[in-house]
Amino acid sequence: MFQAKIRSDTLKGIVNIISTLVDEAKFNIQPDGMNLKAVDPAHVAMIDLSIKKEAFEEYIADETNIGVDLDKIKDVLKLASSGDIIEMTQDEEKSRLVLKVGNIVRRMNLVDTSSMADPRVPELNLPAYVELAVSEIQKGIKAAESVSDHIALTADGDTFELFSEGDTDSVNLKLEKSQLVEIKTEGKARSLFPLDYFSNLVKAIPSDTTVRINLGNNYPVKIMFNFADGNGQVGYLLAPRIESD
Amino acid sequence: MFQAKIRSDTLKGIVNIISTLVDEAKFNIQPDGMNLKAVDPAHVAMIDLSIKKEAFEEYIADETNIGVDLDKIKDVLKLASSGDIIEMTQDEEKSRLVLKVGNIVRRMNLVDTSSMADPRVPELNLPAYVELAVSEIQKGIKAAESVSDHIALTADGDTFELFSEGDTDSVNLKLEKSQLVEIKTEGKARSLFPLDYFSNLVKAIPSDTTVRINLGNNYPVKIMFNFADGNGQVGYLLAPRIESD
Amino acid sequence: MFQAKIRSDTLKGIVNIISTLVDEAKFNIQPDGMNLKAVDPAHVAMIDLSIKKEAFEEYIADETNIGVDLDKIKDVLKLASSGDIIEMTQDEEKSRLVLKVGNIVRRMNLVDTSSMADPRVPELNLPAYVELAVSEIQKGIKAAESVSDHIALTADGDTFELFSEGDTDSVNLKLEKSQLVEIKTEGKARSLFPLDYFSNLVKAIPSDTTVRINLGNNYPVKIMFNFADGNGQVGYLLAPRIESD
Repeated sequence: MFQAKIRSDTLKGIVNIISTLVDEAKFNIQPDGMNLKAVDPAHVAMIDLSIKKEAFEEYIADETNIGVDLDKIKDVLKLASSGDIIEMTQDEEKSRLVLKVGNIVRRMNLVDTSSMADPRVPELNLPAYVELAVSEIQKGIKAAESVSDHIALTADGDTFELFSEGDTDSVNLKLEKSQLVEIKTEGKARSLFPLDYFSNLVKAIPSDTTVRINLGNNYPVKIMFNFADGNGQVGYLLAPRIESD
Repeated sequence: MFQAKIRSDTLKGIVNIISTLVDEAKFNIQPDGMNLKAVDPAHVAMIDLSIKKEAFEEYIADETNIGVDLDKIKDVLKLASSGDIIEMTQDEEKSRLVLKVGNIVRRMNLVDTSSMADPRVPELNLPAYVELAVSEIQKGIKAAESVSDHIALTADGDTFELFSEGDTDSVNLKLEKSQLVEIKTEGKARSLFPLDYFSNLVKAIPSDTTVRINLGNNYPVKIMFNFADGNGQVGYLLAPRIESD
Repeated sequence: MFQAKIRSDTLKGIVNIISTLVDEAKFNIQPDGMNLKAVDPAHVAMIDLSIKKEAFEEYIADETNIGVDLDKIKDVLKLASSGDIIEMTQDEEKSRLVLKVGNIVRRMNLVDTSSMADPRVPELNLPAYVELAVSEIQKGIKAAESVSDHIALTADGDTFELFSEGDTDSVNLKLEKSQLVEIKTEGKARSLFPLDYFSNLVKAIPSDTTVRINLGNNYPVKIMFNFADGNGQVGYLLAPRIESD
């Protein structure tokens, strides 16, 4: 059983993040909140998202899971104005999800979750830690996209750097301690990543968000941030690209 | 002879409504106003639009008719700001219409109306009557478009309902007496319509308009509304779709 | 050697004008400012643009020239907000241009200018002179585009007129002395021009700009205007189209 009310902005934020990786998602529902773990079809990135009951306006649930087509949720979100409340009810008999926004009721078939196993989130020991406003890197990413399809992240001393190099041009964004919330390094940590994945995620994060980044040498990066006043949490892992040179 | 001045917003409203059905239109012009009757090429819908002389800032006309290409009128409307006055003069010798907006003069060839007979508007006896703000149904239509290509309208008791059903999903919008201006029913009236026609019309109606709807059982729907402070009037008839099941 | 700081809006204005004609441009740099002369690949129009040192926030240069890909400059401009300062430094060793906006550094390969000879700007004796706000003709151009692909400019007495004629429709915009800053004519001057060139230029000029036009009979038109508080100057020559009539 699952029945909840949520602010349309909160739901939109959740869907925007998840849909950078997958079209269909399985939410594991518990009485005190829900969780989602997903990898993209190419197994390059993984998301681990949790939402506490407190992120909802109303939340009543037994242990269950629901599989949803994210585009259908987006359709419903287009009908809602900022501040609108969206009501969600699981119709277990018909295995449907019923969404209400204002006078409008949308009934949607759920996606079969029997073959959607939760990926295992690996434990990683990443030596560098950087905490900063996501807005600081959103502009850098836009610049990088016009020169290359990969991006190197480097944490060294008190400096966090984004660097992209194409055939003729390069872009870099150097952030010093004063532009960061926090930085902790043990020597230099540098890894190269596919720019599209990194960019899609970073652009989907609301610009007033603080993100926490764990970085290693030629190792996955872990990007973490909160939403819904700390009642929601995202962990995002992105695999490195092997540098050819 | 025909010469008139009209507010660009009024003309835009008229063109938007008519161009949901046809690309070229014949206006029957009289000394006290003009009228247009048109059916779409597939004969699914019919429009009957009248504009009194009073809807114009200036209006001088003998009995005549003019055939216009609506896209050309739209071109001219793009040059006008809200509040601008558009001057229209029939140049009978050259069978042209001359439109002036600000310093700009656009001369356009008229469309030959000799083969454009006025359709006969059928008399229909439709038992249910609903009057409501068009804005109430504009959102419901947007929701319906993501699940199906047809829409059922139902008036029953004190309730007016829009329902669309696709293969996996459905959308409905139920409006109670308190959300309607008026509803009169004799039993249940329900008909199914092609969503694109219904949607194109409803979206073209300014959102602060009150519409009057006559509905029957598997019968055409008649949608009526006024514009230009009651000096313009639209009647729109849409043929039902036969339900297969 | 070339090193300069410029307001992003000023640089955007310059790039917008030049890129109506060419994708790559050679700037001739002098200690007191820079100059660019370019013709489009079809040799229909020519631009002669000068920018004084005073148009920059900072400007230090020896005599040199730099060839740039305008799309790359546009990429960087997209990262800047109105009011941002863009820093440009020539890296002579690597024949690169380094652009900084905020924390972001973009390094771009320069275009080889060895084969980019400056076109010779012809001396023309054009009898009519018209000075007016470019906004007066921006609307007329939009109107003309929906009927034809050429435009006739006529200066006669105290009147400046734009006229476009298609197969069925025509558009004209007549500006009287009161709508012009100045007009000087010796008899009638009339020439026909390709509308796309004329339109691209006129739309790229900021709408609060006063333009000066020299016109003849079946002769090129010269359009001149200032930017950057008079510290920048554009002369634009457009070849006439021969009228077939």
